[in-house]
Amino acid sequence: MKKSLLALAVLGAFAGAASAQSSVTVYGIVDLGFDSTDNGAAAGRTNGIKSGGQSASRIGFKGTEDLGGGLNALFQLEATIQADTGAAFGAGAAGTGPNAGANQSAGGFNRIATVGLQSNAFGTVNLGRQTSVIKDAYDVVDPFGDGGTIAPISTIFFNGALTSDFGRISNSVKYSTPSFGGFKVAAAYGFGETPGDTGANSNYGIGAGYANGPLNVQFAYHNQDRSTVANPAVQTIENKLAFVGATYNFGVVKLHGAYADTKLETFGPAAETKYRNYLVGVSLPLGAAGNLFASYAVNDNRTTNNADAQKAAIMYTYDLSKRTNLYTGYSHTSNDNGSRIGLDATAPVGESASAINVGIRHKF
Amino acid sequence: MKKSLLALAVLGAFAGAASAQSSVTVYGIVDLGFDSTDNGAAAGRTNGIKSGGQSASRIGFKGTEDLGGGLNALFQLEATIQADTGAAFGAGAAGTGPNAGANQSAGGFNRIATVGLQSNAFGTVNLGRQTSVIKDAYDVVDPFGDGGTIAPISTIFFNGALTSDFGRISNSVKYSTPSFGGFKVAAAYGFGETPGDTGANSNYGIGAGYANGPLNVQFAYHNQDRSTVANPAVQTIENKLAFVGATYNFGVVKLHGAYADTKLETFGPAAETKYRNYLVGVSLPLGAAGNLFASYAVNDNRTTNNADAQKAAIMYTYDLSKRTNLYTGYSHTSNDNGSRIGLDATAPVGESASAINVGIRHKF
Amino acid sequence: MKKSLLALAVLGAFAGAASAQSSVTVYGIVDLGFDSTDNGAAAGRTNGIKSGGQSASRIGFKGTEDLGGGLNALFQLEATIQADTGAAFGAGAAGTGPNAGANQSAGGFNRIATVGLQSNAFGTVNLGRQTSVIKDAYDVVDPFGDGGTIAPISTIFFNGALTSDFGRISNSVKYSTPSFGGFKVAAAYGFGETPGDTGANSNYGIGAGYANGPLNVQFAYHNQDRSTVANPAVQTIENKLAFVGATYNFGVVKLHGAYADTKLETFGPAAETKYRNYLVGVSLPLGAAGNLFASYAVNDNRTTNNADAQKAAIMYTYDLSKRTNLYTGYSHTSNDNGSRIGLDATAPVGESASAINVGIRHKF
Repeated sequence: MKKSLLALAVLGAFAGAASAQSSVTVYGIVDLGFDSTDNGAAAGRTNGIKSGGQSASRIGFKGTEDLGGGLNALFQLEATIQADTGAAFGAGAAGTGPNAGANQSAGGFNRIATVGLQSNAFGTVNLGRQTSVIKDAYDVVDPFGDGGTIAPISTIFFNGALTSDFGRISNSVKYSTPSFGGFKVAAAYGFGETPGDTGANSNYGIGAGYANGPLNVQFAYHNQDRSTVANPAVQTIENKLAFVGATYNFGVVKLHGAYADTKLETFGPAAETKYRNYLVGVSLPLGAAGNLFASYAVNDNRTTNNADAQKAAIMYTYDLSKRTNLYTGYSHTSNDNGSRIGLDATAPVGESASAINVGIRHKF
Repeated sequence: MKKSLLALAVLGAFAGAASAQSSVTVYGIVDLGFDSTDNGAAAGRTNGIKSGGQSASRIGFKGTEDLGGGLNALFQLEATIQADTGAAFGAGAAGTGPNAGANQSAGGFNRIATVGLQSNAFGTVNLGRQTSVIKDAYDVVDPFGDGGTIAPISTIFFNGALTSDFGRISNSVKYSTPSFGGFKVAAAYGFGETPGDTGANSNYGIGAGYANGPLNVQFAYHNQDRSTVANPAVQTIENKLAFVGATYNFGVVKLHGAYADTKLETFGPAAETKYRNYLVGVSLPLGAAGNLFASYAVNDNRTTNNADAQKAAIMYTYDLSKRTNLYTGYSHTSNDNGSRIGLDATAPVGESASAINVGIRHKF
Repeated sequence: MKKSLLALAVLGAFAGAASAQSSVTVYGIVDLGFDSTDNGAAAGRTNGIKSGGQSASRIGFKGTEDLGGGLNALFQLEATIQADTGAAFGAGAAGTGPNAGANQSAGGFNRIATVGLQSNAFGTVNLGRQTSVIKDAYDVVDPFGDGGTIAPISTIFFNGALTSDFGRISNSVKYSTPSFGGFKVAAAYGFGETPGDTGANSNYGIGAGYANGPLNVQFAYHNQDRSTVANPAVQTIENKLAFVGATYNFGVVKLHGAYADTKLETFGPAAETKYRNYLVGVSLPLGAAGNLFASYAVNDNRTTNNADAQKAAIMYTYDLSKRTNLYTGYSHTSNDNGSRIGLDATAPVGESASAINVGIRHKF
């Protein structure tokens, strides 16, 4: 963190006081479709309209200002929209520390709220609420890209805690290097904001990526300190996530693979759970306007027997333009007797789940 | 519903993958004015500043993308603003089904959140949260257009349940035909999203309109299933609304008329209430920049005696430009001994109510 | 108030129905930085990322329409952003009267929600939620301009009740004259919206300013009626604030001074508290892109002995462009034995507080 602020100061010193007018870009996605989900609910299958079948619906405001000397100022504000009911912004993210507003549906600009500086020579530093290096890595590797309600990786990896806990961090600073022949490194730190103990409740992450020709490799490590001054006995409690993934584009088809090793600690004795996750995927163009992608992901619970889960999903998209496409997808989740990932609260443990959807995604 | 999604798929097949850049339009209304209301409150008359004296204050984002081949992609996001205090967006619409976020002040993009496709040849299909066919019909016929705090139709028709229950539906799909010589038909379906029972809690509506020269006729029928799996005994409970209205423009003056027949069912025995509603109205230009409009509406309670209500209102607007006007209006509501429409909670049943306002409406 | 509405009507009569298309401006500030605060909390100092170290982060929408004849229509909608967590908009401002949404973090367009008319000849009238004349005056005089988390004036003046109570008024009308040789007058009225008693809960304020060459003098008086019909015994309860301030620009340095006299009344016997506040400040350019400003402010509690407080702060800003700057600041607050301004709830009365920050502010 200190290094990043120093970098910021250094970048500042290089910049003159040149000014360039630039405009705010209003952008977003509205993604809505029919969805039929059997999540094991006692009453049965649910049919309805869902937001975000392929990508989360969202609205954002962003801009870049050329400061001269190869330096740019950046800002971005982005909010999730539950477009099926119009819900958006909500009550906003409360509290302090990196997990303030951790749940992505917490309202306000829950996805991104940043200001920063970017230089082709020195890299980019952003402050505020932003994606974790873990999310940056798996978004590149996942065939489903930035999500969608049926995508396996966000459901299965890290025991399903990705979207709620590890995807975005508030009160954070993140620094990314420029690309050196396809090689990039990033580091993020989320302040714990705990009185009298800077480390308590803090997050940090480091990531590295290499993109060159057909190959793209991503690595990320995320550490979440869960100690608090109020609970000094648990000051050693941490969640640790390691992720590595890669894609290789053969032209007619692109292969995707990922692996993660996770240790989640909770309060109390013997409260450590270890997971290993695997993903294999494929994506390919299908005709002039079509794309097909599929993935299969495994949650291997290393602490509890008979608590594994698997999810497979396939999606076909048809481009009406660069900004607008139709899509249809199917997913199936199977749980061991001791697992209940993706299930309704009324479903018995170990039940299977499935979903099918048909929708339209429009980027603006 | 199935037909509409099919239509969407068919439209998709016709479209190439052409792309056209288009911009987001930020638009809205800020309408604020002085309002003096006597709603029968025990303490007396209330004077203050009110938002939406002529039209609800709002902010929205919308766009159209030309997909080629006569096909367009559309999106729209629109939120109510309580401009007198700045309240907007709120906690967002919660829950599932067509009535999620039914109350128009529920927050988020509570007015409209849609994505869809439009073709001059095949019509328009939109998914998300949108106006019901009932609202589409009465907005055309009402001299007060899209509302305002003193407009009679939204207060009186359907026993005053228009804005809270029947004006907008979430989790819905709506299809409108192109105009065939002035004739258009629309159909909407709001998914109940009830596990195991697709019909439970669903909505549907059909509308038809004819606009040709001086004549405009609008018809709409809306059916709201109120059954739930949790209450299987009430699986036959429905609200049924039928509406017909027309305007005829004589040039110097335009006449407005509307009629509605409503059956509202609630849980328990003998819990059906029937209403008939009538409206007559007039609108006319008054000088180069002025407009005068007035309406008189009746709520005829067919189930309970002595529970009718009448409301009359008149408004004068003066255009400062096409986007900005001043306005002043007056309304009076009279209730039978058994009716309390438009009254404060502290007012005795059967009391009268009145309001006067003076304000400015600016469209951006 | 009546006069202002009359002025509005008169302005209307002068305007033709000319129309001019104008665009909506999306604007705002994202201000984020590292902050280390010792607010006397029992656990110790808190380090973290804070929004608004120099200026509150915000997003807004505004526009001006040329109505012809020297008349313009104006609207503005502006919301605070807690950019460190992305929190924004929130649940919106609830209730009625001038203090609806009084707390600036209350959500919605909590900062500004107005529509109005502006004429170079007749002045400007705005309706809705807007700044009080008190805030308009001290924003001009304060070396810290529109705030920031460490600025003394908003913490010290009026016993710290500025941002929560006296800075913005809902349900209000405000009229400002044009500048007559540098002299301007403003008046604001916030409707109490109390049934049966127009005066109860209302606000009014009058302000005057003179700006000519190096001299700028600002005066404002704000009266807040706190009576309610529910509490007729307290119908005489009022808060009264008088403020006078001035700046004089010597070129190499600008001097700032302010004085305020306050009487805050609360319910019950002997519940009147009187304060006097003083501020001296200085601001100066430092090099081509640098600015330095500092102020020292005193809260003199005239009712209770040993309950005074002082705060001093200094800030240096470095412009990367006209829209983007880096900043660093330091503040120190000292409390008498009976005062606890700027302290954490766990801090002992009379404790001192200090804060240091380093950040970046970007205007868009």
